[in-house]
Amino acid sequence: MRKQIGIIGATGYTGSELVRLLYHHDGVDIAAITSESRNGEAFSDVHPFFRGKVDVKLITAADALKLDLDLVFLALPHGVSMKFAEAFLQKNIPVVDLSGDFRLSSPQVYTDWYKTEHTFIEGFDIAAYGMPELNRDEIRDSKLVACPGCYPTSAILPLAPLLRKGLISDQAIIVDSKSGTTGAGVKASATTHFSNVNDNFKAYAIKTHRHSVEIEEILQSQGPDSQVMVQFTPHLLPVDRGILTTVYACPSKKITRDDVLNVMAEAYHSEPFVHMVDNPPAIKDVRGTNNCLIYADYDERTNLILLVSVIDNLVKGSSGQAIQNMNLLLGFEESTSLNIIPLNP
Amino acid sequence: MRKQIGIIGATGYTGSELVRLLYHHDGVDIAAITSESRNGEAFSDVHPFFRGKVDVKLITAADALKLDLDLVFLALPHGVSMKFAEAFLQKNIPVVDLSGDFRLSSPQVYTDWYKTEHTFIEGFDIAAYGMPELNRDEIRDSKLVACPGCYPTSAILPLAPLLRKGLISDQAIIVDSKSGTTGAGVKASATTHFSNVNDNFKAYAIKTHRHSVEIEEILQSQGPDSQVMVQFTPHLLPVDRGILTTVYACPSKKITRDDVLNVMAEAYHSEPFVHMVDNPPAIKDVRGTNNCLIYADYDERTNLILLVSVIDNLVKGSSGQAIQNMNLLLGFEESTSLNIIPLNP
Amino acid sequence: MRKQIGIIGATGYTGSELVRLLYHHDGVDIAAITSESRNGEAFSDVHPFFRGKVDVKLITAADALKLDLDLVFLALPHGVSMKFAEAFLQKNIPVVDLSGDFRLSSPQVYTDWYKTEHTFIEGFDIAAYGMPELNRDEIRDSKLVACPGCYPTSAILPLAPLLRKGLISDQAIIVDSKSGTTGAGVKASATTHFSNVNDNFKAYAIKTHRHSVEIEEILQSQGPDSQVMVQFTPHLLPVDRGILTTVYACPSKKITRDDVLNVMAEAYHSEPFVHMVDNPPAIKDVRGTNNCLIYADYDERTNLILLVSVIDNLVKGSSGQAIQNMNLLLGFEESTSLNIIPLNP
Amino acid sequence: MRKQIGIIGATGYTGSELVRLLYHHDGVDIAAITSESRNGEAFSDVHPFFRGKVDVKLITAADALKLDLDLVFLALPHGVSMKFAEAFLQKNIPVVDLSGDFRLSSPQVYTDWYKTEHTFIEGFDIAAYGMPELNRDEIRDSKLVACPGCYPTSAILPLAPLLRKGLISDQAIIVDSKSGTTGAGVKASATTHFSNVNDNFKAYAIKTHRHSVEIEEILQSQGPDSQVMVQFTPHLLPVDRGILTTVYACPSKKITRDDVLNVMAEAYHSEPFVHMVDNPPAIKDVRGTNNCLIYADYDERTNLILLVSVIDNLVKGSSGQAIQNMNLLLGFEESTSLNIIPLNP
Repeated sequence: MRKQIGIIGATGYTGSELVRLLYHHDGVDIAAITSESRNGEAFSDVHPFFRGKVDVKLITAADALKLDLDLVFLALPHGVSMKFAEAFLQKNIPVVDLSGDFRLSSPQVYTDWYKTEHTFIEGFDIAAYGMPELNRDEIRDSKLVACPGCYPTSAILPLAPLLRKGLISDQAIIVDSKSGTTGAGVKASATTHFSNVNDNFKAYAIKTHRHSVEIEEILQSQGPDSQVMVQFTPHLLPVDRGILTTVYACPSKKITRDDVLNVMAEAYHSEPFVHMVDNPPAIKDVRGTNNCLIYADYDERTNLILLVSVIDNLVKGSSGQAIQNMNLLLGFEESTSLNIIPLNP
Repeated sequence: MRKQIGIIGATGYTGSELVRLLYHHDGVDIAAITSESRNGEAFSDVHPFFRGKVDVKLITAADALKLDLDLVFLALPHGVSMKFAEAFLQKNIPVVDLSGDFRLSSPQVYTDWYKTEHTFIEGFDIAAYGMPELNRDEIRDSKLVACPGCYPTSAILPLAPLLRKGLISDQAIIVDSKSGTTGAGVKASATTHFSNVNDNFKAYAIKTHRHSVEIEEILQSQGPDSQVMVQFTPHLLPVDRGILTTVYACPSKKITRDDVLNVMAEAYHSEPFVHMVDNPPAIKDVRGTNNCLIYADYDERTNLILLVSVIDNLVKGSSGQAIQNMNLLLGFEESTSLNIIPLNP
Repeated sequence: MRKQIGIIGATGYTGSELVRLLYHHDGVDIAAITSESRNGEAFSDVHPFFRGKVDVKLITAADALKLDLDLVFLALPHGVSMKFAEAFLQKNIPVVDLSGDFRLSSPQVYTDWYKTEHTFIEGFDIAAYGMPELNRDEIRDSKLVACPGCYPTSAILPLAPLLRKGLISDQAIIVDSKSGTTGAGVKASATTHFSNVNDNFKAYAIKTHRHSVEIEEILQSQGPDSQVMVQFTPHLLPVDRGILTTVYACPSKKITRDDVLNVMAEAYHSEPFVHMVDNPPAIKDVRGTNNCLIYADYDERTNLILLVSVIDNLVKGSSGQAIQNMNLLLGFEESTSLNIIPLNP
Repeated sequence: MRKQIGIIGATGYTGSELVRLLYHHDGVDIAAITSESRNGEAFSDVHPFFRGKVDVKLITAADALKLDLDLVFLALPHGVSMKFAEAFLQKNIPVVDLSGDFRLSSPQVYTDWYKTEHTFIEGFDIAAYGMPELNRDEIRDSKLVACPGCYPTSAILPLAPLLRKGLISDQAIIVDSKSGTTGAGVKASATTHFSNVNDNFKAYAIKTHRHSVEIEEILQSQGPDSQVMVQFTPHLLPVDRGILTTVYACPSKKITRDDVLNVMAEAYHSEPFVHMVDNPPAIKDVRGTNNCLIYADYDERTNLILLVSVIDNLVKGSSGQAIQNMNLLLGFEESTSLNIIPLNP
């Protein structure tokens, strides 16, 4: 019997990507899609390119709470998500949360970086960080999965194996990330005004981006004794989708290029979505897919390890990874509906 | 009396930018523009957007050698430039070279990185590195100016003051650069095929780009005792023009953010083209101009200095800086014809 | 039992799109992919974003001729395709040709517009024009399907119903088309050089494009007595994929807006891929899909009918329509593997 | 003595373009720039890329009214402009208006298309339509110049000479225009949200755009007896600047291609900004300039005249043409400060 799934919050990009990716899933039905602002309209009124395919009527989250669902995705802003996470969990419905509300280690850290109080403190105790490549078993047993941020996904996947094996120093890890504009959301603003982005490029949120602490906390959990320090700098690319992250790290001991490649290969050789590549990858190589490609190198001259990763911020960086987590929670094969060839060009 | 100028090599972007920028210069005439492949055609046949403005007939470089010119720009590929530099210097005509042929310290280093023999060894003794902010007096007295590479311009301008003052360690300086496609030249190739660039982004030439050694050698000349080590990684942006460079460096001693800002302000407060800015700049802020904007910061948490610079690779990174050098050589006010407001948007 | 399919010519965009779209087809196996220039390499060496998904080794077309295939796609340049069409048909293998070699009415017309002799004259007698919405039954019974050109697909679908019903004059139909650069192919050239396309737009091939005659001939076949005259003007958009065609036509009699909408609705209400829309569509509404969206209108003030259509030139304009034809030839449900939600954004 | 100029309304694109273009004008000083919302801030706070060049403090329009100015530009929204036009004219200060408030023939037509009452009816009697190529003498003698809309500029320049000479029928002239996003203004909206524009293309305002009536009225004034009918369809390009307009018109009698070319050449051979070209032009050929390039053709097969024009919508389509008008009003050489080479690429 097909599982009945709810998508709470449907007007943004993560909502529409969840629907796009679940549309071909052979084990689930999209039983409810909610929107407070567009309640009563068809999903395809909000996203017209779904017309004729997904015309289901949008309901309120309150109405979705009355349904007998097997799992819900929360595609809501942080601060809002926590309320619905609590509500659905009280009804014993597993929650896959795409916001930042349960990614960090404690309410205190959350408030420090998100500048708002947390109202569902118990969530921190039960939430699993939803990066299957790090955390598969914990996710399977959880009722609340906190899907990673897009930038953290692109930074943690290349760094985690090297930290676990003690190959790199935990000090002054440099994460220089470049993201497409969909990371800024569906809402029009000066930041995403066409002529401010087109043929342009800039850095932003230097020293202050919330994903800094997420990257540091998760890397810390991979084993190093001393405190992990990450310098994270995001940049805005004139593209729709995709994050490319360039990482620079110091070896913790004398190493060779092969040492780096071997650790990475061992970590990912049997992963369905993370692949090592022989040449620096491009973001279109993963567009529309749940893949993360990683290039690793070591420069003897400078004694630095270099890592380049690419993901689609809306898929592996958000909705795709969320479905990967759902597949684990519901017992489906992990790559169900995520075995996608990139749209390239 | 107006000076008579020659432009040797007119089919590329640097050639057409030289003409665009010199068009409003009130002290020089473009007396000759050369092209071997398009000899006899009008300049505006090669670059139709000059029609009605610059229709001068293209001649060969050999014919230009017969003219009584006051200065020539060499807008030629490396390896070709050296031959014409020698020929014009023998006629006692000052040369502003836009290629990489005289940027490095010696023929040996040149051959190591450019993989070709140098045929004008004496050039190394007389060439001045054409970055006026570092080298103004030497340029004024020189007969052969080697204009800096585009990436090195974007990396050296933010780093040089801090190295001169001993604020940063010379080890493991990280230079993460992102460039528009015009840096790859006017010639069609898979690298610049629209669908390979549009909505895309990638790193390239990891560990191997020739500009690495140029950056290191020039930074070395700024004073540090031990050997400067730079990790330079170029990336290809889906934009026409512009380089944004993000630099990460370790302080050499205990410092504050103000220490960094003071050193930078002191170095550049009276420069016509280099300006410190309070927020991370965008490449469109300098499009079409000879400006370099620099944002400097220090992160106490990680103990790292961060620098972000933007230039137009075809102007401050090439033809504009070349004209800045010409102005010095010929005794014009340094910013003549370069006082430009960006085209934005 | 799954059908065994060959793809002849794999290095271009139409080849890679065929593989992308067939990858999820549950009734066929890609038994052979050929390339003369990359023979022996893996398909994913040519198109690295298929790595791990489609790594099959490329063979020569000559070797493919020895296999026992159920159908071949020819993704070859015009002039080359005709030779392989003949060869495979001699082996009684049905051919779906993506080139222009069999789209026109006769060898004479072909030579007039394609400037080359045709070597497989018999092909004209047996070829079906592969636009199922016009020609479904003929395609089913054919052994050689000539897939329509991309521009003709975008022009014929909106115009055919109105011509069939005699609503529009066949004189001076204006077809103003705008296409992404992938229509120009995978090969780098000045036309597709990034800086010649980015932030740019132009018309080209005014009065002379080969698709003019294809549009006219197929529209002629829809019934009008006098000769159809089409003014076709293509333009080059700074986008990867997509064609938007704006059509202007004079009514042949007094009509209302509803007359137009009724004819269009009747023609397409049960079609799986052609849909009438209430607002002018955008090309991203169909990106990656086999859909054609059409907006129809009538301006009483000027007495003109207006039609706007959008397709993905690589899918409905090429490889997708080819698979639609394959599904008809092999007895699959017509939309098998083509039921796709656009990648948007 | 230099003329003292005011720019009323400085936060939009037309305001910043006026400043960019006037910056090198050797006969005028920018004596005042106004903004109600940013009053008191520096102009370069609103447009940071002017920092160090134009740092003048913004004042209110009311304060500008107290100054002794020689001319003002109104870079204001329609409906607002009329009030300030009246106020400045009462002080006997000539007005160059960039809005749509005085472009049409009467208050009635204005209200029909702009859906608002006009409060300065007398303006219609004294306003000159500011297209110097049509109206030079009238502009010189006027106190109120209504600068043409961007689309009308691109449509009228190619059509006017042919209508004046009676070469084309005034019925069913088709104007298919494609514009960059800056035409939609500086304010963020869903229309200009990056991911809605990038890699995308659409038609809009079919049958309803206000520029339809402007094009028709001005063409009507060029001489035809019967009523001019124009079918105008605007489209939105994923570019910052530029309009390309493709025009289709029926000859009014038997003609040849040379007839068309001769009429066009005669009309524009001595114009400083309008140039006939031999090949279809691209929008980057005029980027940043006041030029209009026109390609004209005649197709014997279809008996249609084809015209393709390109302009920069912010320059010839707005601020540049405004300065051209100012030069006429103040007795400067018409091309002063407008002799610009395009930024290309």
